[in-house]
Amino acid sequence: MAVNLSPPNPQALHPVPGVRLGSAEAGIRKLHRKDLTLITLEPGARVAGVFTQNRFCAAPVQVCREHLAAGEEIRALIINTGIANAGTGEQGLADARATCAAVARELEVPAEAVLPFSTGVILELLPMGRLLAGLPAARAAVRPEGWFDAAHAIMTTDTIAKAVSRQVQVAGRTVTLTGMSKGAGMIKPNMATMLGYIATDACVAQPLLDALVREAADLSFNSITVDGDTSTNDSFVVMATGRAGHPEIVAPTSDGYETFRRALIDVAVGLAQAIVRDGEGATKLMTLDIRGGRDRGECRAVGYAIGHSPLVKTAFFASDPNLGRILAAIGYAGIGDLDVMRLKVWLEDGSGAVLVAERGGRAASYREEDGARIMRNAEITIRVDLARGDAQATLWTCDFSYDYVKINADYRS
Amino acid sequence: MAVNLSPPNPQALHPVPGVRLGSAEAGIRKLHRKDLTLITLEPGARVAGVFTQNRFCAAPVQVCREHLAAGEEIRALIINTGIANAGTGEQGLADARATCAAVARELEVPAEAVLPFSTGVILELLPMGRLLAGLPAARAAVRPEGWFDAAHAIMTTDTIAKAVSRQVQVAGRTVTLTGMSKGAGMIKPNMATMLGYIATDACVAQPLLDALVREAADLSFNSITVDGDTSTNDSFVVMATGRAGHPEIVAPTSDGYETFRRALIDVAVGLAQAIVRDGEGATKLMTLDIRGGRDRGECRAVGYAIGHSPLVKTAFFASDPNLGRILAAIGYAGIGDLDVMRLKVWLEDGSGAVLVAERGGRAASYREEDGARIMRNAEITIRVDLARGDAQATLWTCDFSYDYVKINADYRS
Repeated sequence: MAVNLSPPNPQALHPVPGVRLGSAEAGIRKLHRKDLTLITLEPGARVAGVFTQNRFCAAPVQVCREHLAAGEEIRALIINTGIANAGTGEQGLADARATCAAVARELEVPAEAVLPFSTGVILELLPMGRLLAGLPAARAAVRPEGWFDAAHAIMTTDTIAKAVSRQVQVAGRTVTLTGMSKGAGMIKPNMATMLGYIATDACVAQPLLDALVREAADLSFNSITVDGDTSTNDSFVVMATGRAGHPEIVAPTSDGYETFRRALIDVAVGLAQAIVRDGEGATKLMTLDIRGGRDRGECRAVGYAIGHSPLVKTAFFASDPNLGRILAAIGYAGIGDLDVMRLKVWLEDGSGAVLVAERGGRAASYREEDGARIMRNAEITIRVDLARGDAQATLWTCDFSYDYVKINADYRS
Repeated sequence: MAVNLSPPNPQALHPVPGVRLGSAEAGIRKLHRKDLTLITLEPGARVAGVFTQNRFCAAPVQVCREHLAAGEEIRALIINTGIANAGTGEQGLADARATCAAVARELEVPAEAVLPFSTGVILELLPMGRLLAGLPAARAAVRPEGWFDAAHAIMTTDTIAKAVSRQVQVAGRTVTLTGMSKGAGMIKPNMATMLGYIATDACVAQPLLDALVREAADLSFNSITVDGDTSTNDSFVVMATGRAGHPEIVAPTSDGYETFRRALIDVAVGLAQAIVRDGEGATKLMTLDIRGGRDRGECRAVGYAIGHSPLVKTAFFASDPNLGRILAAIGYAGIGDLDVMRLKVWLEDGSGAVLVAERGGRAASYREEDGARIMRNAEITIRVDLARGDAQATLWTCDFSYDYVKINADYRS
């Protein structure tokens, strides 16, 4: 049961001029479900991506990196679910390349113009015959309104499809940003992979787009955690078709830069949060707002110490305002000269904030019933002021329930 | 239900000349259970300790560090369960000092000759009246044979008392090492704390003892993980009374040094493993044997990545040889230039080893039924060869079951 997450409304997913999506049933691992998605881009689009840091990165991730580095204009993305093509050695690489080659032949573009993505079971080879046989149907299905179907077709064990769409004004023109995402990190066991895609018709210079995708990833997909596991296939790609008709955004001083930047981050955060809301067995969304650090890195370290702690996560599942577990996690986050007497911790919900810890222990004003009241919410913010600088970071995570163990222990049985 | 762990046999716990232990019911948090333990040392004993790196370290840990640094000969240890005296600010420090002062008065020694330890609920103050009122009974109970009672009195939510005893020959004399431990790291939620104590009648120079306790801690208590949480109160103390009558061990070249060192590490590993075997909800003991690293640090990083992964731990609970999760954890352990094509992974039980991964994926010789057979054991070794150096590290962890969530979600309710 996802936390405050509804399926996307197909009418609210604005098509992005220059982008078409088509999904088909290729029978890669299961019959009678769409598992192959083709995204085509008109000539002139600019594409930037960030990928998993896992050394066991999957074959398609390696090929994506190669093709983006090759400098060829990207004309298509091909995404399969069911099998992740990870831990598949040389054969896996050959399969990812063959997939790109087949899409390239179909579209009459170079193989380097195609980016491949896979998500699903690790250590199994792609059924190349069935995958390639499904391509013509995916191609026949491509249309600008394909987002709703595609958001469903890229799901693995996600319980709800994830898509976000926004429109903003840039230099007097309407710019659209529409995106979709699936399954967080290793959140879905062998069905590894967080995938995120955002398309826009904004016109953005390539170096700026490269920088923006890194910044947006840092503030969204790289600021969520479900169980601390990093998948072999994580990918986040932004496609900018440049069709909106406004003057090119070439620098932070360009007209509309800040509006576009905020909209891009906003859509990315929405897609990333949706992954946490649909975390395995999640019953609560926790926002970790860590302030007062010397740098953003130490704020993130504190946030991840809290967000990865099974003790904190099980306490939130139980709606137990167990402050000791939060303080202990802050204490072992690795800040060697942290002054625990100065830091403060609040629990917050929509109705306000309760100071729970100060001076190295429970706040004098804290009453257990105030903590308990906040813990009953489905969305809770833990705010920490480290009182040693001006840096800040926000992370999102979910709680840890019986269902997490059930889903992960039963997955292959 | 602990994994292959039996209660200690009182007859097998050799008294250590110069050491007496007494336990009493002080009613610190619960009635009718021994919760206060006094350990007294005859003059001339040498004591060394290592303590939690958590910045929220508890008041008794701060006082232990001060008293060991003061250079006064240590004459007593006082251990209470029920309340951890952590996150208690200035009042907690005052209480820890007052406890030492009271023990010092009772024994007519300086306050700096006393080391205090607490384990239990965080963020609550010690009931000093009851604690101090229990001291005379604890003192009246001290005797050389007090280990069995003490091992029980320091338990919090441990299900089985943990004690290990060994005798070895050093320069023709019998040297005894007897120790006890309790609850792993944050393994027992608010009942935080891993405590470990080893006493010996060996005669060891102080600088060497300081080095040996660090080495033994590194190879034992600092090589286990249940849930990755580090407690505010973790402490490991070695007491050497020097009564065995052999020439002082002053350097690694001294007669009997290696025998004593191995015995100390052996007892420490036994006490640390017992904590993992009694991990919350544990049904399996996993040994992580990581070889072929450039240094021990990267071997430990890979071991902890595997040992902390909820996905790996739930797969072991399910007896599922889910290789993808193990490989993914190795991949995100932070070794930037790891060559995944060269590393190998084996699953082992008492009957032998099965090569499960090589060349970046599943081993060609691997059969799922071989993996499944090994996974049915209660004790399993995951052996990884990183193939990039000669360093090695061994860690121990347990699986992750429904009961882990149950214990931690229900703890305070």
